[in-house]
Amino acid sequence: MEALSLLATSLWSPISGGITCPIGFQASAIKAGLKSSGQPDLALLLAPQGAVCAGTFTQSLIRASCVDLCINRIRSNPDRIRAVLINSGQANACTGQRGIIDSLRATAALAGRLGLLDEQVLICSTGLIGAPIPIENLITGLDLLIKELSISGGVAAANAILTTDLVEKQIGYEAYLDGRLVRIGGMAKGSGMIHPNMATMLAYITCDAGVPDDLWSEMVQRAVACSFNAITVDGDTSTNDSFLAFSAGKPLSNEALEELEIGLTLTCQYLAKAIARDGEGANCLLEVEVSGTDSDDDARKIARIICSSSLVKTAIHGCDPNWGRIVAAAGRAGVNFALQDLSLWIGPYQLVKKGDPLTGDHLAVSSYISERMKGVYLVDDSVSIRLVVGNGSGAAIAWGCDLSDQYVRINADYTT
Amino acid sequence: MEALSLLATSLWSPISGGITCPIGFQASAIKAGLKSSGQPDLALLLAPQGAVCAGTFTQSLIRASCVDLCINRIRSNPDRIRAVLINSGQANACTGQRGIIDSLRATAALAGRLGLLDEQVLICSTGLIGAPIPIENLITGLDLLIKELSISGGVAAANAILTTDLVEKQIGYEAYLDGRLVRIGGMAKGSGMIHPNMATMLAYITCDAGVPDDLWSEMVQRAVACSFNAITVDGDTSTNDSFLAFSAGKPLSNEALEELEIGLTLTCQYLAKAIARDGEGANCLLEVEVSGTDSDDDARKIARIICSSSLVKTAIHGCDPNWGRIVAAAGRAGVNFALQDLSLWIGPYQLVKKGDPLTGDHLAVSSYISERMKGVYLVDDSVSIRLVVGNGSGAAIAWGCDLSDQYVRINADYTT
Repeated sequence: MEALSLLATSLWSPISGGITCPIGFQASAIKAGLKSSGQPDLALLLAPQGAVCAGTFTQSLIRASCVDLCINRIRSNPDRIRAVLINSGQANACTGQRGIIDSLRATAALAGRLGLLDEQVLICSTGLIGAPIPIENLITGLDLLIKELSISGGVAAANAILTTDLVEKQIGYEAYLDGRLVRIGGMAKGSGMIHPNMATMLAYITCDAGVPDDLWSEMVQRAVACSFNAITVDGDTSTNDSFLAFSAGKPLSNEALEELEIGLTLTCQYLAKAIARDGEGANCLLEVEVSGTDSDDDARKIARIICSSSLVKTAIHGCDPNWGRIVAAAGRAGVNFALQDLSLWIGPYQLVKKGDPLTGDHLAVSSYISERMKGVYLVDDSVSIRLVVGNGSGAAIAWGCDLSDQYVRINADYTT
Repeated sequence: MEALSLLATSLWSPISGGITCPIGFQASAIKAGLKSSGQPDLALLLAPQGAVCAGTFTQSLIRASCVDLCINRIRSNPDRIRAVLINSGQANACTGQRGIIDSLRATAALAGRLGLLDEQVLICSTGLIGAPIPIENLITGLDLLIKELSISGGVAAANAILTTDLVEKQIGYEAYLDGRLVRIGGMAKGSGMIHPNMATMLAYITCDAGVPDDLWSEMVQRAVACSFNAITVDGDTSTNDSFLAFSAGKPLSNEALEELEIGLTLTCQYLAKAIARDGEGANCLLEVEVSGTDSDDDARKIARIICSSSLVKTAIHGCDPNWGRIVAAAGRAGVNFALQDLSLWIGPYQLVKKGDPLTGDHLAVSSYISERMKGVYLVDDSVSIRLVVGNGSGAAIAWGCDLSDQYVRINADYTT
């Protein structure tokens, strides 16, 4: 239950600003004519003095060639990656040989203009599967993209990577570690096809404290497990899920490194919750906390299956305290527990006590849900479901959202 | 790929009539005042001369006490079960000690009136989880229920077990085996919380050929695997899934038994497809055929995950040939295959050939889907998706339905 207790107290304070709030990072974004809407669609993140890079990527068998490119280049040069190019509008997944060539051409063209080796440049793509990138437009845009680079370019980049998202998702945290100010910044995109397995759609974190690459990679894996891998919007895993984390700057003491991981986790959890709250058609953030299992992993399985249940998600949308659907979802998680040990709360209201239904005030529970369904975008206000399923020490939180008519309309009307 | 080839040619002809079309079975149904709607809500199936009974039940950890009662009584007396009482309106799941007592009282009261032992009577419940059965109403209704028993009572029973279903689901098949007419009849209910793991919501089959209990049980398991366990409406497994199959009458030769299993499979597949087609808010039946895997089981995993994908289901609802979502779903099935071996068809139209997208007539594909979305209830007219993912001999079919705004409204407005 490390992840949960982390959140209670920490040295970290949230600040405005995203990936360019730490020292040592620049970003930019332009309209390169990739999206038919004419919106910004090409972003660049640059670490001019270098950085250590760790990444986690979709576990789907069907993944875009840019994902393979990122995996291979990080594996060869975790401490030499300098730049990431991100295009939105086309996922460049399932585009055959052409897709591979386009990714290589784009990174080579950018590397040449920045005076870098091809291997120091990554590319991430998001948008329609099967659609190739209008590559000439992208390459033509590179000079302007580089010209726009600045230490305040984070917001523009966070905007340019969006597709069906309604709001940009970025956050910064700062803390004094080893007597100096350390900052972590992050941005993400994602709204549909969100059920990450290892990482989410696209997310980026920067940090101005230096961490050795093997250690940084371990910290990133742990932070992802209790953030991006704990959210779901629609149960569909993307072909392009990519999460990249950059660390650059002076190293920290071992004690400060522990605190840094807390900040990293906070940043990842904020961005993950922001994605779930901005789930396609969503009106609220759903937070499911499960405890009393043998392991954290068991708790996470139950929490995530409840967050994924269409029947739970529609009940929440209808402000209906239909706890039977929650219990039924828990029962199919593949985790062993006894119904007579199960207690359940929605918000502050207990509905099941050791397997027995309580005749509580269902109208009050309905009002509790309804107050959180007003459609205001607040990452920190969620509909809370809590289950205790036994006496074990395992616990976990998962995040999701309600399932609305709008979700169906968005995805039925999204004609290819 | 036995299940698929079975369908092509067989001795069996569909006939009208359900569970009472085979000789040796009676059924009835009444309005016992269990449903607030005043609709029929109590059904009875009786084998007056006895029958062999096999059953499969939900694998969910959270299951109704009536499921345990059925499992225990069938295990003790597979060839002595005589009657099944079925109530709709209340699932009697998660109702604590009271739920267990109510199931025992109901079966004892029926057994007493029929001159049977308690152990010869089963009970199945369907409806709201957490709601107890109005047990006095049920017991008061038993005399009338018995009075109404007849060899043409199958339709009435098929109607009385429905909840959110729009249509009743029943079928009969007949064939000449060993020189005599053999009939199989079946009925089922289910519309939401449909993602069976071992059996579906409620389904019943009768057969007027006698089969030894161990053999009958094996035949039933195999038939369920490629029928009820191959459908999904919303990914949610029920607490009350129960499938009961009764065999009564003269025994058959070994050759005829093989043919009987084909008939059993046809009956199960018809009912399973009828449930998927009547999925909450559904406008079409979705049929996904996957072949070229190492095993049938691998093919079934891929087919079922495609049928379960919210993004595939909404694309079908929008008549959108968005094959990228289908390929992405296949990629997260946990089955190993190479994208460059994957070919994909929607109806007669090939959209992907060995990993490469084809620039086909997407408007024609859209029309193909749209013609099957007219909302007419036809179990045999489906939107067909076909994938070949390699050269293996494994193959399987799964069935589902589109995901519509109505699904959300049905489940958001279903206030407890």
